[in-house]
Amino acid sequence: MILVNGQRSDTVSALDRGLAYGDGVFRTLRTHAGQPLWWRDQYAKLATDCAALALACPDEAELLAEISRVAETGEGVVKIILTRGSGARGYASQQGQTCTRIVLAAPLPPHALPDAAVDVTARWCRLRLARQPRLAGIKHLNRLENVLARSEWDDPAIFEGLLCDDSGVVIGGVMSNLFWAKEGELFTPELSLCGVAGVARTRLLRAAMRRGIRARIERSLPDAILAADEVMICNSVIGVRRVARLDDVSWSPAGWTDTLKTALNDDLD
Amino acid sequence: MILVNGQRSDTVSALDRGLAYGDGVFRTLRTHAGQPLWWRDQYAKLATDCAALALACPDEAELLAEISRVAETGEGVVKIILTRGSGARGYASQQGQTCTRIVLAAPLPPHALPDAAVDVTARWCRLRLARQPRLAGIKHLNRLENVLARSEWDDPAIFEGLLCDDSGVVIGGVMSNLFWAKEGELFTPELSLCGVAGVARTRLLRAAMRRGIRARIERSLPDAILAADEVMICNSVIGVRRVARLDDVSWSPAGWTDTLKTALNDDLD
Repeated sequence: MILVNGQRSDTVSALDRGLAYGDGVFRTLRTHAGQPLWWRDQYAKLATDCAALALACPDEAELLAEISRVAETGEGVVKIILTRGSGARGYASQQGQTCTRIVLAAPLPPHALPDAAVDVTARWCRLRLARQPRLAGIKHLNRLENVLARSEWDDPAIFEGLLCDDSGVVIGGVMSNLFWAKEGELFTPELSLCGVAGVARTRLLRAAMRRGIRARIERSLPDAILAADEVMICNSVIGVRRVARLDDVSWSPAGWTDTLKTALNDDLD
Repeated sequence: MILVNGQRSDTVSALDRGLAYGDGVFRTLRTHAGQPLWWRDQYAKLATDCAALALACPDEAELLAEISRVAETGEGVVKIILTRGSGARGYASQQGQTCTRIVLAAPLPPHALPDAAVDVTARWCRLRLARQPRLAGIKHLNRLENVLARSEWDDPAIFEGLLCDDSGVVIGGVMSNLFWAKEGELFTPELSLCGVAGVARTRLLRAAMRRGIRARIERSLPDAILAADEVMICNSVIGVRRVARLDDVSWSPAGWTDTLKTALNDDLD
């Protein structure tokens, strides 16, 4: 089921600025028995991203009601797309433009099922992410870099591709954030120039802090990941996954993924 | 009137990848008596942009037929949007996905009417364009940088904003390409790292060459524009316009705009 501005509909206006310019933001979240998981963080991130693009964030109660209307009864995924609405041709937005709010449900993908393997295989992508501080961190609708990076492989055994920016600094996965552990500390890329600062990343950083694990946000080169004790990816749908293999490099479990998986799910915020 | 895959419709699927990821390209062109202007160049550019994103370019005859169905009887504007179609959630595209083809008409904007002033006022934008060679030159649907840049001003007296990349090199206008003249030569920014290489720019470069005017494609700093004899912007809807004022700097006409305007319209390709 799809709701567009609260009404059942499978379509949006052909003049929508989300289509014309990618002028909007989105969220992908898990639901359980019709309720969104990690909602406080999801809504906070949506509000932050809306503010960055000067979009009006939808009312929280309205959004929650729409999520429970569309969500699967068991485990599922809900996607929220918010655009600057439809308007006249041209990049300038009109005063008083009404946002388009799309809420749609999708089944839980196989790799997100509770019994899916915790270990995944990843690769390095050739595409380098452009550095744009005005859009960095935001989950906006301009995702051609992700599409191009994802098109670099079609081997279903490869779950994720890792990306660097155009100066060679590691940013994260095509659809996930990256963490690695080394000598008792946790690391994740700094995202002020590109990448998406996802909700799972925020929650992992908070969970680590609460447990007294030192977590560093760093600008690192690929060598740092290759030298790690354990490498992990995370997002709101898959949770935490251990990267068991990255191109020709493989790792044995060092215990971090299990610790963080528990931390992520125990954190009740 | 709007045609979606050849059928009259005001809407597209809420699952379209053009909306989800900006996964597509577009063209904006002028029409006269139902016929597209500069069609050979417009279709060639559409085909080039499709190839860059591995999209199937629509058949030329089909597209021409759709343009004449939607176009205004007098002067008008037609926009073509082409996306990778609708599909399952996720950045990976499915085999055999069918593109979505949207053809829509819009009236000629006031600034494109034959009696509109040739002189315009422009400003420098604060936003710096990110450098992404994989997307540079392509008129794709990821246009948040243009939206953000255009939101920097709302003074209707300012027609266009000029943009530099994050190294300070001049790229062009928010909705136009930039030319300037200095000591008998014509200059336009090099666009291999960012910007859109528009059809009016291609035609101006060709027209200059045919008339024995030396045209240089350069990486230049704003100082070069400020020191120019004449500054111009161009696109397929407005043709060529002289920048009479750029923030606090103003220029008297030096004859280049009239020459290039004639060249652009005389060129029959």
